[in-house]
Amino acid sequence: MCAQLLSTQPYKGTRDFYPEDMQLRNWFFGRISEALRLASFEEYNAPMIESLDIYIAKSGEEIAKEQTYNFVDRGGRTLAIRPEMTPSVARMVAAKMGELNFPLKWFSIPNMYRYERPQRGRLREFWQLNVDIFGCDGYEADLDVIESAILVLRSFNADETMFKVHINNRRFFNDVISAICGTDADNSKKVSKIVDKRNKISREAYEKELAELGISSAQIEKIDALYSMDVKSACALCPDSIGANELLSLFDMLEKTDLLKYCVFDFGIIRGLDYYTGTVFEVFDESPENNRAMFGGGRYDNLVGMFAKNAKISGVGYGMGDVTLENFLVTHGLVPDLYAKEVRVLVARFDDVPYENYISVVASLRNAGIPASLYLGSKKFGKQIDYAVKGHYSHVLIMGGSELEAGIAKIKDLNSREEIAVAISDIPSVLK
Amino acid sequence: MCAQLLSTQPYKGTRDFYPEDMQLRNWFFGRISEALRLASFEEYNAPMIESLDIYIAKSGEEIAKEQTYNFVDRGGRTLAIRPEMTPSVARMVAAKMGELNFPLKWFSIPNMYRYERPQRGRLREFWQLNVDIFGCDGYEADLDVIESAILVLRSFNADETMFKVHINNRRFFNDVISAICGTDADNSKKVSKIVDKRNKISREAYEKELAELGISSAQIEKIDALYSMDVKSACALCPDSIGANELLSLFDMLEKTDLLKYCVFDFGIIRGLDYYTGTVFEVFDESPENNRAMFGGGRYDNLVGMFAKNAKISGVGYGMGDVTLENFLVTHGLVPDLYAKEVRVLVARFDDVPYENYISVVASLRNAGIPASLYLGSKKFGKQIDYAVKGHYSHVLIMGGSELEAGIAKIKDLNSREEIAVAISDIPSVLK
Repeated sequence: MCAQLLSTQPYKGTRDFYPEDMQLRNWFFGRISEALRLASFEEYNAPMIESLDIYIAKSGEEIAKEQTYNFVDRGGRTLAIRPEMTPSVARMVAAKMGELNFPLKWFSIPNMYRYERPQRGRLREFWQLNVDIFGCDGYEADLDVIESAILVLRSFNADETMFKVHINNRRFFNDVISAICGTDADNSKKVSKIVDKRNKISREAYEKELAELGISSAQIEKIDALYSMDVKSACALCPDSIGANELLSLFDMLEKTDLLKYCVFDFGIIRGLDYYTGTVFEVFDESPENNRAMFGGGRYDNLVGMFAKNAKISGVGYGMGDVTLENFLVTHGLVPDLYAKEVRVLVARFDDVPYENYISVVASLRNAGIPASLYLGSKKFGKQIDYAVKGHYSHVLIMGGSELEAGIAKIKDLNSREEIAVAISDIPSVLK
Repeated sequence: MCAQLLSTQPYKGTRDFYPEDMQLRNWFFGRISEALRLASFEEYNAPMIESLDIYIAKSGEEIAKEQTYNFVDRGGRTLAIRPEMTPSVARMVAAKMGELNFPLKWFSIPNMYRYERPQRGRLREFWQLNVDIFGCDGYEADLDVIESAILVLRSFNADETMFKVHINNRRFFNDVISAICGTDADNSKKVSKIVDKRNKISREAYEKELAELGISSAQIEKIDALYSMDVKSACALCPDSIGANELLSLFDMLEKTDLLKYCVFDFGIIRGLDYYTGTVFEVFDESPENNRAMFGGGRYDNLVGMFAKNAKISGVGYGMGDVTLENFLVTHGLVPDLYAKEVRVLVARFDDVPYENYISVVASLRNAGIPASLYLGSKKFGKQIDYAVKGHYSHVLIMGGSELEAGIAKIKDLNSREEIAVAISDIPSVLK
């Protein structure tokens, strides 16, 4: 034993999950899994530790080394605790490319670590729902993925007043910028980079940088107009664009399937310039006090490129953090009292009743599917009631010597505080 | 993109969980959680990363450093990926000692990492069920914990021919050795150390080492006899021992509650000399080809000592690895075909039917609680059937242009290969 006492705090940016926290987390993840299983997504997982190389290949050495917990094992391998799931799932898909049943509809709720300063909504250890469809190039997969995000949120009783899916398309973005600016691909990329910064730099700087690339005020106005256009007017600006047609197909289907109320076209959704290649979307919290993007995703090409040559598998998907979801559900009052509905019975213990009688009552409850425990110890009845209340039990079963002699027990409902007497053999059926 | 292709293999000693593996794992963990919730245990969890100090405090610096993946963060903190759960849960209990509702009945199924050579049954990343009762000193908690292990195994339909709980008591062990050898506490400890090695060293060495401590052949014979005694005869050798009385109470209650068929007294169960202080047990696989201890546990004192002075909280519990459980269930044929019972519908897609008609059929299935997906893509019907079979779908819904016109669809059962025609509006109710 050490002489100095150790800290009882968890490591900075991580959380302990006491039973009440865990109950909440299980409820979150259970709902999500159920919604996605209904939508026929299958769950997978991968190890917490991966070779650092796969993060370097995706994000570059500097970011990979700075954002991950990484270390060298005794065999000289440089490892990292996963900061995201995409490189792992890309590795898994690449490993069994010939055997897997494409298109894959996969999800996972892994925990991951990012080495960053902890702040509201950003922790060092977090869980992240990952939903993806691999190996389907059509807009149908984009629709299915967006629908799955809506189904997940709806499974928590969130409705269209609480969230909106903001949708854009990266190909359309490139094409419409080219169409407006009449520039070649190379210059168009430079323009795109500035447009991507539109809300991050001052208006003055924005206009100046565009002007330097030869973009006129009239062209800047045309770009500005895109941010308040509906999808049809926007797409009319470059009708031959594949991206425009993907957008139109997607919104047409959203309308016909009654999902449009959850969705809106938003030219401001870019999500960085290097990764996504088609549909991109972000899900916004609509509450005035928290109106911001909660999570997002989109379509990307060449998932397995770092693992397999000459193999192209596309993906479309999103990632949603557990803290983000929790904030959203709490803000909108969508977290119920998880202990309220559950029947859970504490059998109180009295010294004048043989212990085995209690054990058999507990067993009869469990056999009937009712969670039950005997009070472990020999404290006074009042203390046992306190224990039951604090422990979220719904009922206390009272069977002292006199009750046992009469072949009955009393069931005390801890919510209503009512007590009823029932025959011992009827206990499970009364509680069911 | 890197020029060199990366390996698709997971890190040594870790596993990828493809959907079929994950389905199995979810089934394992779901059964365990359900059995323990019925027994009124509550789930908790803790971060994957902890301060290395808590493992050093429990196991010493050498073991802690050698067995864990550990590293220093940029703040100079030495951290470890957890190799076990007890130090974390001790920290959590110590942190809220004044608020928690003792006795606690807690469980967790965390993943953890141990830096060791991977071999059958021992991986570097594994999951481990931890079940504990904290803050109850009586044999009642020991009984409840042992019963929970039996309930967990029974929930997989394992019966008393497949496993047995071997039970001993560390206090009884010490007391009966003293009683037989008539030695003082100090010498008794030395004798115990040799008895603990009984099956690990040669008989010759065993007798020699005991003789060196002044133990006679007659005394050695008396110790030998304990290994084939029943619990009553064994306890009669030191009737005043607290440990003997705990054993007798425990076995009396096991008998009265019909759990004795799963249990046996076994003087050979020691589980190391430094940690456990009362009841100790190990659960054995009874199959001839795998007859060995699968997991075990027992009672220990002073759970929170390294975190809090002058506070004593006892615990009794066990840990069970996921690989061990899987081996046991597979050996005894207790893993069913998990896809066999599930209804899961693939809606086949034909080009002459508007896409929104398919989307609405899929939505009606999901609303009825039936997992369903539209085939994503536009391959020939035969390919779509192949996809459904390989993807463990139970049914394919066939609705081409002619069926749609007639207001019907065909449901193909992929097990029986039978096809029935139903009205489109009846699809969910027929499949339910």
